[in-house]
Amino acid sequence: MGKVYIGVDVGGMSIKAGVVNINGEILFKKSCVTDGQNVDQFLKDTKTLLEEVVNEAKEKDLDPQGIGFGIPGMVDNNLGIINKMANIGGRDVPLKYYLKDLNLPIYLSNDANVAALAEQKFGVAKGMKHVILLTLGTGVGGGVIVNNQLYEGNQGKGAELGHTCLILNGRQCGCGRKGCLETYASASALLRLTREYMEKYKDSMMWEYCNNDINNVSGLTSFECAKKGDEAANKLIDEYIMYLGEGLLDFANIFRPEAFVIGGGISNQGEYLTNKLEEYLRKQNYGYEGAPESKVLIAKLKNDAGIIGAASLLME
Amino acid sequence: MGKVYIGVDVGGMSIKAGVVNINGEILFKKSCVTDGQNVDQFLKDTKTLLEEVVNEAKEKDLDPQGIGFGIPGMVDNNLGIINKMANIGGRDVPLKYYLKDLNLPIYLSNDANVAALAEQKFGVAKGMKHVILLTLGTGVGGGVIVNNQLYEGNQGKGAELGHTCLILNGRQCGCGRKGCLETYASASALLRLTREYMEKYKDSMMWEYCNNDINNVSGLTSFECAKKGDEAANKLIDEYIMYLGEGLLDFANIFRPEAFVIGGGISNQGEYLTNKLEEYLRKQNYGYEGAPESKVLIAKLKNDAGIIGAASLLME
Repeated sequence: MGKVYIGVDVGGMSIKAGVVNINGEILFKKSCVTDGQNVDQFLKDTKTLLEEVVNEAKEKDLDPQGIGFGIPGMVDNNLGIINKMANIGGRDVPLKYYLKDLNLPIYLSNDANVAALAEQKFGVAKGMKHVILLTLGTGVGGGVIVNNQLYEGNQGKGAELGHTCLILNGRQCGCGRKGCLETYASASALLRLTREYMEKYKDSMMWEYCNNDINNVSGLTSFECAKKGDEAANKLIDEYIMYLGEGLLDFANIFRPEAFVIGGGISNQGEYLTNKLEEYLRKQNYGYEGAPESKVLIAKLKNDAGIIGAASLLME
Repeated sequence: MGKVYIGVDVGGMSIKAGVVNINGEILFKKSCVTDGQNVDQFLKDTKTLLEEVVNEAKEKDLDPQGIGFGIPGMVDNNLGIINKMANIGGRDVPLKYYLKDLNLPIYLSNDANVAALAEQKFGVAKGMKHVILLTLGTGVGGGVIVNNQLYEGNQGKGAELGHTCLILNGRQCGCGRKGCLETYASASALLRLTREYMEKYKDSMMWEYCNNDINNVSGLTSFECAKKGDEAANKLIDEYIMYLGEGLLDFANIFRPEAFVIGGGISNQGEYLTNKLEEYLRKQNYGYEGAPESKVLIAKLKNDAGIIGAASLLME
């Protein structure tokens, strides 16, 4: 029987589970929708999904070694509970206890953490020992690999890189603090910034791109118009790169990673984004004169990163 | 022969070396002044001092296991070189090579790192596994202990906690960036803030405390007048606590330490300071709702922390 690892990617809308081999390949996957609000239903759905996955694995002569979870929220892996979870709600949900009949080791971590692990073990940062991942989506998620190992912070509750202060007493963040990196560097922040620039620059190409309706603004608006030479869009992108770049410099000064890996919606900009960020870091001496270089890379496992990373929690 | 460890605390004005036993006790120490500018002289002085220390140790039937250095600057421990050093100058100074005739293992680290190690192994944070130390002096030095081990960042060049951005495009920092924590939370920053408040509040008790001469401002001025109830001084201290507190919240969100240890001149304020900081952290939920508590403690090894911490680099 081949040893395999089950990875579960919990999202706001769906729960995806995959069976992954030691090479980080997904052998098969299954998913179900969640109603997005009810914790009891979430537990039930998760258990049913995992029973199906485990059974199918055994039918295929595979030997699951355990189940890893990437949770959009705060977890306590020692106690096997989800302290809190975006979208689904609930407090201190005893996931591990609820799944005890599956008789498999359970490892809980946060979604950005497992994405970092996936990219470092099997993705774009394979072979590197020191890696920082930032997912730029609704928020800014952070994952830290130190010396080949996932660093989750004491009690598994650290590595919240999106919730470090970039502008003291700046924008209100959902976390309760003000001026967090997340409020300036997330995809949501880019949309807000795009709307602000459009209001200010009425002759910007961005208006045409949005069919003169500001409600059509997307993560592409500013980037695509900047590439076409629109002045306002280029100014906007420079501002956004500064926010993100200053965040990277902070983490460079703390961790000195070999590479930053950028994931989430914004990462679709590829080299256009990484070239600008690398230029910003280089100009600022990677945070400190004489400091070693950090590359900027685009995450490559995309939608599979959650499953692969969660499964990787159980490997070795 | 008892096993001992030699710790060297390199300062701008003097080089101090001590022989430390496995319990973190300094058995004896020696020091010499440095001329503060000349690298060749620094190397020569260091070697002479260490030859004397090693000889005296052997006369006392002690068996030195190696020499650790706490350097005020950037080092490359693998190559055994000091990349750059505050006050003394020089670039990529081959300290390890220069001391090769001593035939002892050499370990180079930065001064705040070794202070953190000293406090965690033998000082106020003894018994804790996750500790962040900040020294508040001319600058803000940072030291990180993760899971009982010193974390120096990749290539030993990280943990520069004072050089994370608190206010985007804020005050110019000596490191080249703008708005670093160091420019708001160091002792030097407190002095600047004190002078600013005095210029603004001409009736503040701080003027009397300084004999009406702003050149007499010290690190005590604001704290002592705040304790006596001076309104301007209390406002000033609240602002300073906010700067420092927001920095601690950033590191709480990244590391979730069991304790923050405060060293340097400002730490003489003791519980008056730690109570205010703990209150600030508590009000902000330690960075994140549901996050575990981090204590705030005052470093206790004072001037010996450098020697003890540097010696500790070689232990185990």
